[in-house]
Amino acid sequence: MKFPLTLGVSARHVHLCEADLLKLFGEKAELHIKKTIAQPGQYAAEEQITLTTEKGSMKLRVIGPLRKDTQIEMSMTDARTVGLKPPVRISGDIENSPGARLVGPAGEVELEKGIIIAARHIHLCAETAEKYGLREGDTVDIRTEGERALTFREVPVRSGKAHADEYHIDTDEGNACGLDTGAVVEVIINK
Amino acid sequence: MKFPLTLGVSARHVHLCEADLLKLFGEKAELHIKKTIAQPGQYAAEEQITLTTEKGSMKLRVIGPLRKDTQIEMSMTDARTVGLKPPVRISGDIENSPGARLVGPAGEVELEKGIIIAARHIHLCAETAEKYGLREGDTVDIRTEGERALTFREVPVRSGKAHADEYHIDTDEGNACGLDTGAVVEVIINK
Repeated sequence: MKFPLTLGVSARHVHLCEADLLKLFGEKAELHIKKTIAQPGQYAAEEQITLTTEKGSMKLRVIGPLRKDTQIEMSMTDARTVGLKPPVRISGDIENSPGARLVGPAGEVELEKGIIIAARHIHLCAETAEKYGLREGDTVDIRTEGERALTFREVPVRSGKAHADEYHIDTDEGNACGLDTGAVVEVIINK
Repeated sequence: MKFPLTLGVSARHVHLCEADLLKLFGEKAELHIKKTIAQPGQYAAEEQITLTTEKGSMKLRVIGPLRKDTQIEMSMTDARTVGLKPPVRISGDIENSPGARLVGPAGEVELEKGIIIAARHIHLCAETAEKYGLREGDTVDIRTEGERALTFREVPVRSGKAHADEYHIDTDEGNACGLDTGAVVEVIINK
């Protein structure tokens, strides 16, 4: 069985916890919505910070709303430019991941852990998941077409009320299949 | 039918024609071997140049020996950092590709065309190609394992006396499958 799904390519970004927001942007800081994104309630914020290591630095867009833990998602290409080797992880799984110094307009944070390379995954709303008999934790294959046609195998499903149908990959993966946000890919259910 | 093949991940690099070598490195310049690479007779040279555009600049390692035309191979990630949009092409196919300013220790070259994103391909020596009934121009699928398991579909075969068995991809593709030079992938013959 198969069905179409829209691609979302994520550039590097940071999710902040409240304590780190206040350290980086000041005592009464709040995030300001620049642009909503596909997942319900989430948005790219006006706010940006700088990550620095001994090897280099890079700007990171803040994605709101605030979370329990600060987490940075970057591509392997990004990681190499700042000399980091983050693990490939599903969002939220930050144990034993590297940290770095974060610099904002009002202060700095020495992040102990939280830098990951986001594992590719599909988001499905409850209705779509039910329609195709898929549940959180299932895996599917994702087939792309074009001059860099790929099949991403064993891609985990994330599903629930707060999810909108979308296939999430990072910029390295987007470049490898030659596609960008808004392209349509095919979900192949193997079970 | 399937068989194992060694992966080679290519970082951005430049092949120079003789005229451009002399302009960039001086009248009596020659390339000096830093390290041989898997394809017979080819090597990473000691020499490096800088590519510059209005948006940025980057260093490029010269790969020898000299060729008929200067050609630069970079990833889509690289291309974005210098504001270029090169086409995905098999090496040698540089018509209607962008150029840039090249800067060497002895001079500069205004390259009119020659910047491409290298299309993934497999090299097979004549013996391996014959053993599996594959010819220049055939396509195969390449299957990788690991936490970012992928199948690259419709990958063209290059074969002949000057080829050594290897699957060539760029750094974006290497990151997307989470593998580096020396990893072993599987060639799947569909015909």
